[in-house]
Amino acid sequence: MTREKLYLYDTTLRDGQQTQGVQFSTPEKIQIAKALDVLGLDYIEGGWPGANPTDSAFFDEMPKTRARLTAFGMTKRAGRSAANDDVLAAVMNAGTQSVCLVGKAHDYHVTTALGITLDENLENIRASIAHIVAQGREALYDAEHFFDGYKDNPDYALAACRAALEAGARWVVLCDTNGGVLPSEVGRIVGEVIGAGLPGDHLGIHTHNDTENAVACSMAAVDAGVRQLQGTLNGLGERCGNANLTTLIPTLLLKQPYASLFEIGVGRDALSGLTQVSRMLDDILNRVPMRQAPYVGASAFAHKAGLHASAILKDPSTYEHIAPELVGNARIIPMSNQAGQSNLRRRLTEAGLSVEKGDPALARILERIKVREDEGYSYDTAQGSFELLARDELGQLPEFFEVKRYKVTIERRKNKYNKMVSLSEAVVVVKVDGEKRLSVSESMDETGTDRGPVNALAKALTKDLGRYSQVLADMHLVDFKVRITQGGTEAVTRVIIDSEDATGRRWSTVGVSPNIIDASFEALLDAIRWKLIHHGEAR
Amino acid sequence: MTREKLYLYDTTLRDGQQTQGVQFSTPEKIQIAKALDVLGLDYIEGGWPGANPTDSAFFDEMPKTRARLTAFGMTKRAGRSAANDDVLAAVMNAGTQSVCLVGKAHDYHVTTALGITLDENLENIRASIAHIVAQGREALYDAEHFFDGYKDNPDYALAACRAALEAGARWVVLCDTNGGVLPSEVGRIVGEVIGAGLPGDHLGIHTHNDTENAVACSMAAVDAGVRQLQGTLNGLGERCGNANLTTLIPTLLLKQPYASLFEIGVGRDALSGLTQVSRMLDDILNRVPMRQAPYVGASAFAHKAGLHASAILKDPSTYEHIAPELVGNARIIPMSNQAGQSNLRRRLTEAGLSVEKGDPALARILERIKVREDEGYSYDTAQGSFELLARDELGQLPEFFEVKRYKVTIERRKNKYNKMVSLSEAVVVVKVDGEKRLSVSESMDETGTDRGPVNALAKALTKDLGRYSQVLADMHLVDFKVRITQGGTEAVTRVIIDSEDATGRRWSTVGVSPNIIDASFEALLDAIRWKLIHHGEAR
Repeated sequence: MTREKLYLYDTTLRDGQQTQGVQFSTPEKIQIAKALDVLGLDYIEGGWPGANPTDSAFFDEMPKTRARLTAFGMTKRAGRSAANDDVLAAVMNAGTQSVCLVGKAHDYHVTTALGITLDENLENIRASIAHIVAQGREALYDAEHFFDGYKDNPDYALAACRAALEAGARWVVLCDTNGGVLPSEVGRIVGEVIGAGLPGDHLGIHTHNDTENAVACSMAAVDAGVRQLQGTLNGLGERCGNANLTTLIPTLLLKQPYASLFEIGVGRDALSGLTQVSRMLDDILNRVPMRQAPYVGASAFAHKAGLHASAILKDPSTYEHIAPELVGNARIIPMSNQAGQSNLRRRLTEAGLSVEKGDPALARILERIKVREDEGYSYDTAQGSFELLARDELGQLPEFFEVKRYKVTIERRKNKYNKMVSLSEAVVVVKVDGEKRLSVSESMDETGTDRGPVNALAKALTKDLGRYSQVLADMHLVDFKVRITQGGTEAVTRVIIDSEDATGRRWSTVGVSPNIIDASFEALLDAIRWKLIHHGEAR
Repeated sequence: MTREKLYLYDTTLRDGQQTQGVQFSTPEKIQIAKALDVLGLDYIEGGWPGANPTDSAFFDEMPKTRARLTAFGMTKRAGRSAANDDVLAAVMNAGTQSVCLVGKAHDYHVTTALGITLDENLENIRASIAHIVAQGREALYDAEHFFDGYKDNPDYALAACRAALEAGARWVVLCDTNGGVLPSEVGRIVGEVIGAGLPGDHLGIHTHNDTENAVACSMAAVDAGVRQLQGTLNGLGERCGNANLTTLIPTLLLKQPYASLFEIGVGRDALSGLTQVSRMLDDILNRVPMRQAPYVGASAFAHKAGLHASAILKDPSTYEHIAPELVGNARIIPMSNQAGQSNLRRRLTEAGLSVEKGDPALARILERIKVREDEGYSYDTAQGSFELLARDELGQLPEFFEVKRYKVTIERRKNKYNKMVSLSEAVVVVKVDGEKRLSVSESMDETGTDRGPVNALAKALTKDLGRYSQVLADMHLVDFKVRITQGGTEAVTRVIIDSEDATGRRWSTVGVSPNIIDASFEALLDAIRWKLIHHGEAR
């Protein structure tokens, strides 16, 4: 049986950016777009060119993708031609292969929000879509408030869609803009729309999660015949978010009848990177990943109930709807039992440390991790610090050098041009091979910009470590994450540092302290010690 | 038309406690149960008496409720009578009016996980339910893995349900234990079950959110005829959680066809306390409430898109599916680079700044926000800094004092007991009323713990501001958020500080710099300036 193509359209960079508190920079947008492209999305909506400098810069700087990069905008305004509408012109100027325009499909909004006649609105849709097509681009029409509009005035909602299709739109996207429609209504209305002659393979669905049904509404629309599905990574989006592609993709790929009926751009290989893509987005947003997220959450395959955990050991399918590896996730069984120790041994093996089953060090390592996590540490991502902790318990951690003391000074004052400037300076005192060494560095980079106290500290620490300095020369910081968390009863700062060296490998280390500089210093120290242990190894 | 009764069954205290990281104390369980009772739930499942001390204590101490308090357990084991099963006896001893027992409905689990015959399992269900009924209690049977079981062996799954009904069970609850079933399957299977003669008004539905469809599956089951719905507050529960009652309740009460078809225990009055109940649970769990949560999330009625915000001002129903007041929530129009002038004016009004439509200052403020957001600032949540920026453009920002310079020193060294300790010290120089003032503070708190450089800086800054120090005495930091973001092409640090004063009001301010101490200082300064402007006002 030939499977039908189901198109996936991502709007993380546009509707996802409507999430309260989310503001992507241009480099972040590019990073996300590349990840979406690797994942296998068919369309990537990049933003609204002309609406703000970040979106415009993104389209200027975005490299070629396999996915169709799409610019978003709105249908031309009444009283001018499509060619003379400056807002539309800015959208066209982004030069994308596909252009998606939102326009009203609900009569009430045409007369109330826009204050124009119903016919003028249809003409705006028609002329705008025709303008895109005339320029050789692919046109999409987002039928705003389609479902509410259809319930009030089905003829007008359909007329808006037909105006776009007749003008050459490749897709008409049925939008539940307010997010209030329920799955059963979506199924019924899409059925009627297709019954009225609109072709399902030219229809898309765009839903919001205001009743926690965005995923279900999307699936109901696919069941009823639409062939393009819009959503966002991690369900970002205006108000309660958009349909969550991180959930929909594995469901479409792994569950019946979808797996047999449809061909989607995401393959099994890409699917196994889904958890990582989801975490990457949280990292960019500096959000704590949602533990309970379907498929990709840290708790999605955690088996807390005692009855469940013991059955899982016999056969994972007893309490798992899919195998966690398929989406790049992992099973969690409480550390306290036997399964906890085998999990730990697997992780140690990954770090190149082989420990016999039943070795008492395993229980000691588990206990120490538990105590540290209680203090605010987190070893989920900080694999480097995890390895050092384990090595310490196993007696396999050399003491390369000893830090005697350090001191960081941050000053802000007027410079000789009467401008406020800041400068940090760090002094580090270490003992290497029995010899005491003092180093000092400042935070100014080549351009004269203050890069801050952690930068100064990192430079001073690696500057003079005797025979080790050479080894550390190719190492640099690639990311620095700070989170305020709870350690015991007091708020503490958790710093996670990602480092990289010339072999291209990356490692993460963690530090915790009420003092952010001290937490950073601890993570830096771990990063250096990890590098010294592994410096001879190829990637 | 008479509305049919739809029963609501809460399992926050039992299945909700299976959430990773959740462990309620007995007083917390009592507090939650009381809130559920006020809300109008029909059943409150309190836990598994005998399984742990907290659950047993809860049933001992729980006061009378209007809702039926229900004890949870499992069907008796094979090879002994119901009366002689000690696990079942502990459940009965809790003395509740209703008792719910989970038992297998999937043939594979009977033979694999339990290792008994299919007939033995049916007998265990029958005898256990009959035992409950014989003691004058109401009996419920949770048909574990019902949907997976029905797909594999429908006759056996139905036989398990019939065994419970024939033995006198008031309810048979169809459970999707692994959470993998989709809404369309639930609809079809429940239809077949009722078609096979099982009465819908004796059937319940219990779903999990592993495909983000727990709410949709519950509604599909109600559509198909079940009349009891199980779930948890805020969707707590094993793995990805249970069906979210915080979402289902307003949907059933406010949306068609449910509002016309069904009578539920929750009334309009109780509904208006829903947001508060949801936040109370997060408070108990010390969780940050999920902003994007449907109905009750802080972002559920936040309108970030400029086009949306201006229409909302004309008529809220243009972009809201229900009025936020109905669930005790509130509308938010945040600031962002996508916001229009009407959005801005509304937000200025909220800050007590009235600006005429068309005032050129509006365009200047928007422009400055855009530039600042490009640098890494974010004004969505930092309402305090937004107001200061606007006041500055409007010429309504007094210069209370001038910061001439500051210096922070962070030192880590061995103390006299040869233990590594850290200490921070901050010196701030300000000019107030023409007079220069130097202040110094250190980061040690009363317990001798180093609270870090930002703490020292905050103390030094407020220590001696002349006539202003008195005003600032009741102000303190309540939260401190740090994220590394992109400002232009370089990584910068964004710090958001939440402050509070004796009136109980809170305000948020933001600072951005490559230097984390400097970013913190900027946010601190804004926090102080905001307080000085508003110090005379009541909350």
